[in-house]
Amino acid sequence: MKEVYNFSAGPAVLPKPVLKKAQQELLNYHDSGMSVMELSHRSSLFEEIIENSEQLLRQLMGIPSNYRVLFLQGGASLQFSMIPLNLAKNKTACYINTGSWSKKAISEAKKIAGVTVKTIASSEEQHFNCIPALDQIEIPKDAAYVHITTNNTIEGTVYTKLPQTGSVPLIADMSSDILSKQYNINDFGMIYAGAQKNIGPAGLTVVIIRDDLLNQEAALSSMLDYKIQAESHSLYNTPPTFAIYIAQLVFEWLTELGGIAAIEKQNKEKAAKLYAAIDNSKLFCSPVEPNDRSIMNIPFVTNNQELDKKFIADATKIGFENLKGHRSVGGMRASLYNAFPEQGVAALIDFMHNFEAKHLGGQSI
Amino acid sequence: MKEVYNFSAGPAVLPKPVLKKAQQELLNYHDSGMSVMELSHRSSLFEEIIENSEQLLRQLMGIPSNYRVLFLQGGASLQFSMIPLNLAKNKTACYINTGSWSKKAISEAKKIAGVTVKTIASSEEQHFNCIPALDQIEIPKDAAYVHITTNNTIEGTVYTKLPQTGSVPLIADMSSDILSKQYNINDFGMIYAGAQKNIGPAGLTVVIIRDDLLNQEAALSSMLDYKIQAESHSLYNTPPTFAIYIAQLVFEWLTELGGIAAIEKQNKEKAAKLYAAIDNSKLFCSPVEPNDRSIMNIPFVTNNQELDKKFIADATKIGFENLKGHRSVGGMRASLYNAFPEQGVAALIDFMHNFEAKHLGGQSI
Repeated sequence: MKEVYNFSAGPAVLPKPVLKKAQQELLNYHDSGMSVMELSHRSSLFEEIIENSEQLLRQLMGIPSNYRVLFLQGGASLQFSMIPLNLAKNKTACYINTGSWSKKAISEAKKIAGVTVKTIASSEEQHFNCIPALDQIEIPKDAAYVHITTNNTIEGTVYTKLPQTGSVPLIADMSSDILSKQYNINDFGMIYAGAQKNIGPAGLTVVIIRDDLLNQEAALSSMLDYKIQAESHSLYNTPPTFAIYIAQLVFEWLTELGGIAAIEKQNKEKAAKLYAAIDNSKLFCSPVEPNDRSIMNIPFVTNNQELDKKFIADATKIGFENLKGHRSVGGMRASLYNAFPEQGVAALIDFMHNFEAKHLGGQSI
Repeated sequence: MKEVYNFSAGPAVLPKPVLKKAQQELLNYHDSGMSVMELSHRSSLFEEIIENSEQLLRQLMGIPSNYRVLFLQGGASLQFSMIPLNLAKNKTACYINTGSWSKKAISEAKKIAGVTVKTIASSEEQHFNCIPALDQIEIPKDAAYVHITTNNTIEGTVYTKLPQTGSVPLIADMSSDILSKQYNINDFGMIYAGAQKNIGPAGLTVVIIRDDLLNQEAALSSMLDYKIQAESHSLYNTPPTFAIYIAQLVFEWLTELGGIAAIEKQNKEKAAKLYAAIDNSKLFCSPVEPNDRSIMNIPFVTNNQELDKKFIADATKIGFENLKGHRSVGGMRASLYNAFPEQGVAALIDFMHNFEAKHLGGQSI
């Protein structure tokens, strides 16, 4: 089998033991004679999977009992509409704009009739290379919520401290750093995340929402209604059963590994090594303000587009996959999610050293 | 491995060769060193999968080039809202009510502001044991569409001929009989189906929509907007990549088998055998009008709840899974989707004979 390191920003690398277990029982789940994909979502076997997934996630993240955990479809992108639809009707919804995904969240909220959207801070003028200053943000007391993107997958920034929103609920798109480091759930009214980075396969969205925020009024569609989804325990219709099963295996893997404290330590070490290599390099540099650097998504550039292209091409040849930066920012990006192995970081750093030795000073490409 | 026959109404039995292939390449797709679940949705490997899936489906169903094929999330239930939202704003939307799923479609449409919902025919008074007469339906000429549920999973009925809607587009929820028999796509403005019966795993929804029906006005959410989804080739955000891959394998399997003509023949034979056994029985009977009987979902009852329960319990013991009828109708239901093997039907019939011999005439349960 070809050895690769998969730096994809998502769908991303999954833990090998998870894939091996899924492979082993793909045709015969727990001696049922059926694949997980073939289980009725109303069967006791699947109910066990979805309940166990929820319990494992609750333990891992320390989710208090007054929060509901939902397993939905549609990705973070559908949440961009569901949040204002359920929570901000005839109210003001505040957003902090820290990059492409924040902008999408804002633009979808603006489409919902009756919602006043207010961007209370932005780092757009800094080309999103930092998190904006938060000490002077003004939040209307009657705002429905303040929405942030904790980790900016494309730009490679992360909030190192959360905005103080007082009694106004903080809502976080945590798609690209959920389970990567410790968060205090009580700091949030709602957290949501597409699964395809640290949780499992694409097609599953996890929502963690405080009981009192569940909408009292019906949303315009049962499928888009948090209260209906919560009351039916994510079984209002057929959920993405296989994706939930893989998420369960990922949660088990992470629990065995020592939980979020353990993985956070690993993640910080992996990122620190790569940042050190970038900062010590004469060829590569980081476009991101040092204080706001993500430990999940690490963009870097040579400031020479041809050289960037050469780097990515050479890297791909030796099995370093998906190092190309997002089309909106260019350069390179290494996504180092939970399942990305430490030796992959070491290998990348070696490769960067060699590439630098060969190409520094404008030697022929 | 335990031998079972899985009569589940969905998620349902999948073709064994599909599961085996998925298992074989689960950790190493096409020698990429990665699982399909780990592929970036922007990678050429995944683009190939989604394009190939579409082409195979187009060939199987004979989808003309003026129809778009979308791979979405949210199940048929989300389509219940998307259809009126995109296609019936300030218009009348007509529905034919043939069972639980039609009723849900109608009730979701009623929630959309600006849509006038009209039920133009219903078999509710007949407890949905038939398709209503269609020769006298009245369709307003300016109606946005007429919506039907071609096959009623819970009630076990199917349209044997389609309503004549003239220039008004016919929209069909085909979740439980797509790919099971030949349909002429040109008879429809739009077809949609949750994947978890004849296509693949839960979490994928296939939409086939005629070009001219794509909404001109933006829907209230990009994710819910057919035009945006069509223009981005189902890659507006991360699609359910693994489910699309399994769908591709199912389409390949069906193509190799001889396509829809071949599977339709098998399906009719399987269903005919079971219906004959029910009709020839003195214990079991079918609650469905003979003319409108589904070849996919076959409900049957003993008219004795205790005996039904005993039947299901005994059947489960010998590996006949999910024979219990939907909670709303009771009794038994055998779902005989494309991947359900013929020998499973024969085994069920044998079991029914033995059960009848033992319990006919009120012998002790």
